[in-house]
Amino acid sequence: MSQKIRVAMLGQQFMGRAHSNAFRQVGPFCSPPLLPELHTVAGRDGASLTEFAARFGWANTTTDWRTAVVDPEVDLVDVATPNFLHREPSVAALEAGKHVLCEKPLAGSFEDARAMRDAAAAAAGRTFVWFNYRRCPAVATAWKLAREGRLGRIYHVRATYLQNWGGPQTPMSWRFDRELAGSGAHGDLNAHLIDLARFLVGEPITEIHGATSRRWVESRLDGATGERRPTSVDDALLFTAGFAGGAVGSFEASRLANPHQNANSIELNGELGSVRFDFEDMNLLHFCDASDGAREGGWRRIMCTHAGEHPYVEHWWPDAHLIGYEHTFTNMVSDVLRSLVGEEPVVPLCDFADAFETQRVLEAALRAVDERRAVMLDEVS
Amino acid sequence: MSQKIRVAMLGQQFMGRAHSNAFRQVGPFCSPPLLPELHTVAGRDGASLTEFAARFGWANTTTDWRTAVVDPEVDLVDVATPNFLHREPSVAALEAGKHVLCEKPLAGSFEDARAMRDAAAAAAGRTFVWFNYRRCPAVATAWKLAREGRLGRIYHVRATYLQNWGGPQTPMSWRFDRELAGSGAHGDLNAHLIDLARFLVGEPITEIHGATSRRWVESRLDGATGERRPTSVDDALLFTAGFAGGAVGSFEASRLANPHQNANSIELNGELGSVRFDFEDMNLLHFCDASDGAREGGWRRIMCTHAGEHPYVEHWWPDAHLIGYEHTFTNMVSDVLRSLVGEEPVVPLCDFADAFETQRVLEAALRAVDERRAVMLDEVS
Amino acid sequence: MSQKIRVAMLGQQFMGRAHSNAFRQVGPFCSPPLLPELHTVAGRDGASLTEFAARFGWANTTTDWRTAVVDPEVDLVDVATPNFLHREPSVAALEAGKHVLCEKPLAGSFEDARAMRDAAAAAAGRTFVWFNYRRCPAVATAWKLAREGRLGRIYHVRATYLQNWGGPQTPMSWRFDRELAGSGAHGDLNAHLIDLARFLVGEPITEIHGATSRRWVESRLDGATGERRPTSVDDALLFTAGFAGGAVGSFEASRLANPHQNANSIELNGELGSVRFDFEDMNLLHFCDASDGAREGGWRRIMCTHAGEHPYVEHWWPDAHLIGYEHTFTNMVSDVLRSLVGEEPVVPLCDFADAFETQRVLEAALRAVDERRAVMLDEVS
Amino acid sequence: MSQKIRVAMLGQQFMGRAHSNAFRQVGPFCSPPLLPELHTVAGRDGASLTEFAARFGWANTTTDWRTAVVDPEVDLVDVATPNFLHREPSVAALEAGKHVLCEKPLAGSFEDARAMRDAAAAAAGRTFVWFNYRRCPAVATAWKLAREGRLGRIYHVRATYLQNWGGPQTPMSWRFDRELAGSGAHGDLNAHLIDLARFLVGEPITEIHGATSRRWVESRLDGATGERRPTSVDDALLFTAGFAGGAVGSFEASRLANPHQNANSIELNGELGSVRFDFEDMNLLHFCDASDGAREGGWRRIMCTHAGEHPYVEHWWPDAHLIGYEHTFTNMVSDVLRSLVGEEPVVPLCDFADAFETQRVLEAALRAVDERRAVMLDEVS
Repeated sequence: MSQKIRVAMLGQQFMGRAHSNAFRQVGPFCSPPLLPELHTVAGRDGASLTEFAARFGWANTTTDWRTAVVDPEVDLVDVATPNFLHREPSVAALEAGKHVLCEKPLAGSFEDARAMRDAAAAAAGRTFVWFNYRRCPAVATAWKLAREGRLGRIYHVRATYLQNWGGPQTPMSWRFDRELAGSGAHGDLNAHLIDLARFLVGEPITEIHGATSRRWVESRLDGATGERRPTSVDDALLFTAGFAGGAVGSFEASRLANPHQNANSIELNGELGSVRFDFEDMNLLHFCDASDGAREGGWRRIMCTHAGEHPYVEHWWPDAHLIGYEHTFTNMVSDVLRSLVGEEPVVPLCDFADAFETQRVLEAALRAVDERRAVMLDEVS
Repeated sequence: MSQKIRVAMLGQQFMGRAHSNAFRQVGPFCSPPLLPELHTVAGRDGASLTEFAARFGWANTTTDWRTAVVDPEVDLVDVATPNFLHREPSVAALEAGKHVLCEKPLAGSFEDARAMRDAAAAAAGRTFVWFNYRRCPAVATAWKLAREGRLGRIYHVRATYLQNWGGPQTPMSWRFDRELAGSGAHGDLNAHLIDLARFLVGEPITEIHGATSRRWVESRLDGATGERRPTSVDDALLFTAGFAGGAVGSFEASRLANPHQNANSIELNGELGSVRFDFEDMNLLHFCDASDGAREGGWRRIMCTHAGEHPYVEHWWPDAHLIGYEHTFTNMVSDVLRSLVGEEPVVPLCDFADAFETQRVLEAALRAVDERRAVMLDEVS
Repeated sequence: MSQKIRVAMLGQQFMGRAHSNAFRQVGPFCSPPLLPELHTVAGRDGASLTEFAARFGWANTTTDWRTAVVDPEVDLVDVATPNFLHREPSVAALEAGKHVLCEKPLAGSFEDARAMRDAAAAAAGRTFVWFNYRRCPAVATAWKLAREGRLGRIYHVRATYLQNWGGPQTPMSWRFDRELAGSGAHGDLNAHLIDLARFLVGEPITEIHGATSRRWVESRLDGATGERRPTSVDDALLFTAGFAGGAVGSFEASRLANPHQNANSIELNGELGSVRFDFEDMNLLHFCDASDGAREGGWRRIMCTHAGEHPYVEHWWPDAHLIGYEHTFTNMVSDVLRSLVGEEPVVPLCDFADAFETQRVLEAALRAVDERRAVMLDEVS
Repeated sequence: MSQKIRVAMLGQQFMGRAHSNAFRQVGPFCSPPLLPELHTVAGRDGASLTEFAARFGWANTTTDWRTAVVDPEVDLVDVATPNFLHREPSVAALEAGKHVLCEKPLAGSFEDARAMRDAAAAAAGRTFVWFNYRRCPAVATAWKLAREGRLGRIYHVRATYLQNWGGPQTPMSWRFDRELAGSGAHGDLNAHLIDLARFLVGEPITEIHGATSRRWVESRLDGATGERRPTSVDDALLFTAGFAGGAVGSFEASRLANPHQNANSIELNGELGSVRFDFEDMNLLHFCDASDGAREGGWRRIMCTHAGEHPYVEHWWPDAHLIGYEHTFTNMVSDVLRSLVGEEPVVPLCDFADAFETQRVLEAALRAVDERRAVMLDEVS
């Protein structure tokens, strides 16, 4: 591996744009030890792919991802495809000795996820999963506070990821098809919440106490055919979970919770302190230090934009000159590159083994929905 | 019954103060059709009772509630005692032909609640339960919006009642003793949430999908003996529930969720609109009208203090001259008195039959905790 | 003076109701050293006065305030009349040896205010002015923090009192007539801001740097005659002011600042700390302790409802069981009664001499508007 | 001019980074009609300049800005230097026929600003000033609402730009030296507020009613010499201003208003509606439509992130996937490029003539401070 690291990316939709930007921006802003070279982008639609590649600076394009993932000129494969198409390219790339960056959730099915974990364990390449929200400076600050013992014993985790784009007018897409997506709001949104909760609490989830899901919109317009097609995923899924250390967590994902648009929020209440984060105010962390006492205590509204005090901020702008969604991806690429040369990431990265633990929780919740009972995580492996 | 209505109240603690104030204030502020006469207050501690009666204007005191509830000079009995002592005086008063006002939850045990419901059904007197939060002007406004169809089909109910006073330093009291309280945060706080949710959604809860409870503090100092005694109630209890119309609700009660102090909050997301209320900002209602559209829509922060537009406000002060906790009790007494002379209350009152429905949900959640499975409400009657 | 203190109140409108309630509630809740006896209420409209007196428990009524203020059975005279009618009854009562409680501002005209200050200086009775907002627990907490040096040197004071009831549809009243009110938003709202600023900063205002006023609504409907009458007061008045210690303050009062309804807000930024208060969230104080540092610092949202920690709360309810507008008056009566028997008030009370200092600032601002220049306070005496 | 537009940029500090990023990002995200070619960057420190150029992709570097601004290969000159160095390069570039983009404020001195306005009027090239905040989607939405008449007649403008980085520990820099900066918080921060106010209200400011400034920190450490040097600019400057249509505005800029870090906020209250914006929550606009009425009205919290509804968002990410500070610059470059080929910008751009009007207000406020009187804008030309 030279000073550069050559990247092949699979996918050119929403995540393709977000990842391309991160690969472009990490150099000017984050002084990484390796510079990504945008070698090849793969996608199904060759016409739009050419335009996409020109726009973001990808040197080559291909409509055959299989060649890209084994290309000897490629060091790292970024899998930004729909959930059902995570396993095959990831495994192929690992077998070809590449490092693999994969979108979350690890996979659409539990079986796929297990296979990916096993492939990673057997491979020489490194693996990473795009749980980008760990790298909001506010979330990373919360993680540091928790690790420093500032929260004490955790009692409560309260996590909701609420969106409103899933109304009846929204047309059919792979995201509403269980075959392609695995699940709906659950895999898309609860995956983030479970990762954040596990990351911040620092303990495994050991039990799903109960779960339920809803599908209120039964069919959607297929833009291609002009006809309505049945949907087959959840619009919302809620569950409560127990952590190894005794904390209790509530989790809720929905695509029909207007006016919330991207309200990825999590709160921890502990014996010594509490933290609260909501992506819709992503530059802020709310922290309560119980030692402030009743007279002077309460939520502290912390603007996590101070270089040197809040993680990742030294790459960006002065105090309260806010960063946005895309910066979480750039911060992650920065940590991935540091990690690949043996440096410590600012906060821990998620690999396939770690993401598999999140997938076990997703799976346990699905079983709790189906079987209408509590499910121990030991039952899911 | 004359122009006056003669009241006997049982209890002189926190609720005794709140109720006394309401009986005093309803006359000057609410122009009620009946004027409460503070006839008798009953309590165990005769010494402090005399001081209490003088302070709030109770004409008589007794340490024997049994005489008070059958006193022919008394028209209405107000039961403001701990949960285990709701049933006996309520039933006795009903049998003596009195109207009964009882603190929430209806009872500490499901058996007591059932007996009270049955006694009420057989009695000539009217019954009322102090679910005071229905009478925050903001909550009553939300109820009106829901009844007018402004929310459309309800998808989500998200209800949490979070307090922080239950830490290890808090001494033992009846509230931590299962024999006396029935349950901990569950009966105390979830009772309010369930009543609010049923009230606002306007549909029965039909299923508990799952539930869990926690007791983190195992023993507390007994102020009388100076020794630690075991606690026997939940510090927190969470459950998810399904409503008859398809909505899903999450409920969480905790006494260990610092820095929340009295965060009785509920949010409904519907097809046409959403509402959000938090008692810690009790004069506000947040409302989203989906027809405002994406460009101009979002939570509207409504100060529910406009006489003529927001219920109950005409009794109080000008715009944004805020009211507080105690006013919800006075508003309720106002509606009770109106109801007793055949007028309509501003928003529906809760009687024993209605409160029993809330108690069924409390009970179903307890079973779901114990049996680690989903419980249909039909199983609990 | 006996254990009771006999009160005569002049006025039966908005302030008459607020004061009556305070006199009624101070006994049950605040354990005062003297109990107010509601001796006489005076008002112009005898018919409504009888009903008012019955409602709030005033023993006697009169339509001749002159007899009430000299009645030998009266100990304390409460002047709750419009601004132009503060001076005459206050001076008469002081000359008759009574204590006087007067509504704010001290007077409608500077000349009246000067005469009242002089009468108070020459009298045996005590004087008090109803600057009730000092007795929000949150404001009193801010005062304590400031006095303890937690803010350090003050740089900024930012005070706005914004309402929205003064639109063109609002009918004529004494509040829009310069002869009767003295000024509009200025005397009504800036009076509160100036008092709060002087109280919290603890330094005199020495200069008005500039000021301007607006009258956007030129005439209003006279409900009695059905015709429009010209208005003669400001709808809004803004000024900047310098404090003796170098702080700079901005002040803004408006009755046409929709959607603000009673947004009496003030913020102080100091070298060591900042505080922020808004009456529309009156139970909250926002405090920033600069020593929290950039990583963990920011506004702390303090719920000022903890008995023993936050002033006045021990009289009322548990944590976050909010109090409202009327409690600020009851808290004030509690301090007035304590002060009359030689006890210290919880936070300083405002007498006529102190209120005159606020009136000087009001006057200086009016001159700055008229003369379009900076005005030193020394010019106004 | 070809499909590309060749840019020379002067300056490599904070603004140099922000502008470079905007020139880089406009291509991939905004589909502009011209593509910026990063031709030359000029700076005083050749060593760091090379590294800077490599990082952001500038093809050439020079330590002599005079050659860069007349280079025949350059089409557009971007002046990102300190305030005292705006005039000379801008005028030289205009005389050489270039288009000029200049940082705000237009100049450090009123004389410089006048000269720049005159040079622009005489030149063939176009001019633009980096008032980037106009291009927050929330601000642009507010502008559209105002232009559509949704606010009605404007009564109030309330604008504060509060920062906290100017404490005594902050070392000396050109920003604290009047010779180099012209003024302190005033030119730096009030310049933005004045531009935003003029932009949103759509009327000229006609009078400064009063103004005052403060310098609390008298000297600062010179990092180069290790000695303290006197400061010569304001730490804070406040003024009130009248608009042609009768609205009144208050303006406040401070670098010593902890805990505010970049609180560039503005509120307009009008007869039909109000808007409120704070850069610390830059993706949000608060809007009150008076026609919502008292029952249902209040601030609407609008997340201005919906493509097709909120300006500029179509270039970026889905709903509530927030953008940050840097995007305002990219949005501005996008509009500049459109404007250069004759297309309409999304919202109006600011040229030298427009920025000179803002500079007149800055100058009038300085005179009001010095002369302690109201100043008509007509006096300043």
